[in-house]
Formats: sequence, structure tokens, C-alpha cells
Amino acid sequence: MRKGDQTRGRMIDTAARLLQAQGYHGTGLGQVLAEARAPKGSLYFHFPGGKEELAAEALRRSAESWREAVLAVVHAAPSPLDAIRAVCELLATHLEASEFRDGCPIATVALEAAPTSQPLHEACAEAYRTWEGVIEERLRGEGMPAARAERIATLVLAAIEGALVLSKAARSATPLRKVGTELPALLRTLV
Amino acid sequence: MRKGDQTRGRMIDTAARLLQAQGYHGTGLGQVLAEARAPKGSLYFHFPGGKEELAAEALRRSAESWREAVLAVVHAAPSPLDAIRAVCELLATHLEASEFRDGCPIATVALEAAPTSQPLHEACAEAYRTWEGVIEERLRGEGMPAARAERIATLVLAAIEGALVLSKAARSATPLRKVGTELPALLRTLV
Repeated sequence: MRKGDQTRGRMIDTAARLLQAQGYHGTGLGQVLAEARAPKGSLYFHFPGGKEELAAEALRRSAESWREAVLAVVHAAPSPLDAIRAVCELLATHLEASEFRDGCPIATVALEAAPTSQPLHEACAEAYRTWEGVIEERLRGEGMPAARAERIATLVLAAIEGALVLSKAARSATPLRKVGTELPALLRTLV
Repeated sequence: MRKGDQTRGRMIDTAARLLQAQGYHGTGLGQVLAEARAPKGSLYFHFPGGKEELAAEALRRSAESWREAVLAVVHAAPSPLDAIRAVCELLATHLEASEFRDGCPIATVALEAAPTSQPLHEACAEAYRTWEGVIEERLRGEGMPAARAERIATLVLAAIEGALVLSKAARSATPLRKVGTELPALLRTLV
């Protein structure tokens, strides 16, 4: 890999990590450049759109890495209901290990900036559509009709995203674990 | 009301509105003071703890005003399931009217700052506990056993909070309306 590409990659990874923990407004470009060991001039060289473009790239990378992690859990689980429980447990463990800093890598930026920034709105919306697609596909694989699977996938994603918010607020993974128990119990009648 | 109290009240209301739309890091004290027509020296006079204390007060005011709005809907609805649908519709309408700026007044600050600020963590956790209490009480009023009502209340709050995040990200109230339809349908077996 060329040196410039390595710098670009480090900037994206660093931005992804900082955005997840601090959000968009709380993450300064100086901090990203310093932690990525990137020279000052490199931001606009690699990202002509500046902070917005770098953040959108970082969100796309985070979305892809979460999609892979969730897919691995979903494929390993014997049923979609076990998969929901396992994903909640994965997120709970991750949140606890980071002392409640690392929740959803998309949500904070979505709440802060999606209404006002077109590139960030697009990156956030795309991330959620992708994750919802993973859930929807697994539900359809169990024979759920397409229209219902699409609506239930939104509900499942919303409940998990909301549980991440409640868990971060409370500094306790209990909301995530409650949703991981109660949501599959409710869905049992459908799957 | 004394003039100082009026200034203090305007600062809290202004901070509440700006925090809801822009979050904690995106809201500068200069903007709060200017929009509240408050003199520069008044911040530390009224809030010795500075921005953190003002924000915590603002979150408490927002939490109380949402609690009242939700209680009114919950009491007017013929059943807890109708209440969930009505609350989702209220939030969807509100979000659309604000061009997707005004979502949950607590979530953005919870994600940005609850892990690192003790006063903001406490204010956010208290807000969610209060709202969860409203849902739990309504479920128990229908005869649901206390332990189950407590867990289902967390799930309902999580699903609505998550739907607010997805709706803001997508600039579309569809996720809120889907949750408002699918969640009551799933809960029908319990209530």
C-alpha cells in the first residue's frame, strides 16, 4: 500500500473511533490528525470536502465493520431469536468494556448532524438500511412474508439502537440485556 | 417573578431547545446567552457549575415537559397499545414539523456526554427512569405483573427512542410510524 493510502486509512480509522466515543461536534480535526500521525496538509489532500467528508467515510467504515460483526453472530445463532439475544449480549459486553463510551458508531452523529448535513445524513441512513437488511433477510429466511419482515426488522433495529442509548445514559448494560430477553420472547409467536 | 429568575428561566428554556436540536458539544454558551437575551456575567451567577449545570437543568426541564405531554396522550388513549401508537404519531408529527431537528431532548446529550460527565449522566438517567415509569404504571394498571411490566416498559421506551434515531438519520418519520404499528401488534398477546 502506498504511504498516502496508509495515512488516509489511519485518518478514517481514527475518525471512526473518535466519532463513536465523542460525536461529531466533540471531535476536532486537530485530534484526528494528531492521533492518526497525519501531517496537517493531508486532510484536504485526502478529503477535499473537509471534516464532513472524512466523517462520512468513517461512518461508512464503522457501518461495514459492524455489519460484519453482526452477520457473524447472526449466522452462528441457531434461530433469528437467538441471534437478537446474542447481538444484544455482544453490544452489552462491548459497552461495558469501554466504560460506556463505545455505543453505536452511527447514532451520535445521526442525532447531531443528519438533519443539517447532506453527506452525513446519507452515510447514517445507508448504515441503518444495511443493518436492517441483515435482520430482514434472516427473518425472511425463516419464512416470514416480505412486507412483515421489513417492518419487524425496523422494530428490532429500533429496539436495539434505543437500548444502546438507554444503556449509555444509565451507565449500565441492563437495558440492552432486558431488550435481548423480552424482544425475542415477544417475537416467538411470529417466527 | 424577580428579573433574575426570569433571566435564569429563559437561559434554561433556550439551552433546552438548543441541546435538543444540536446536542451538547454543538451548543455554545455564547449562543445560549445571546438567544436568551442574558448578560455575560449571568451564567456563573445563576449556574456556578457552568455549562454542565445549565445543561443538566435544561435536560430536567425537557424531561418534565415530555413527561407531561406523554402522560396526556397515555391518559387519553383507551388502552396502553393505543397509547404507544398515539405517542409514536405525536413524535412523528413533531419531528416532521421541525424538519427532523427536534428528536428526543435527552438522547443526543446522553450519547455525547453521559459517559464522561456525572451531572449529565444523572440528568439523562433520571429522565429515562421517569418516562419508563409512566409506561410501566400504565401496563400494571392493565393487570400486567410488576416484574414483566418493568421489563416491557424498558423495551417500549427503547423501541421508541431507537425509532427517533432512525427517523432523524433517514429524515423520514416512517421508522416511528412502523414501530407505532408493529410494537402494539406484538404486545397484544400480553395486554
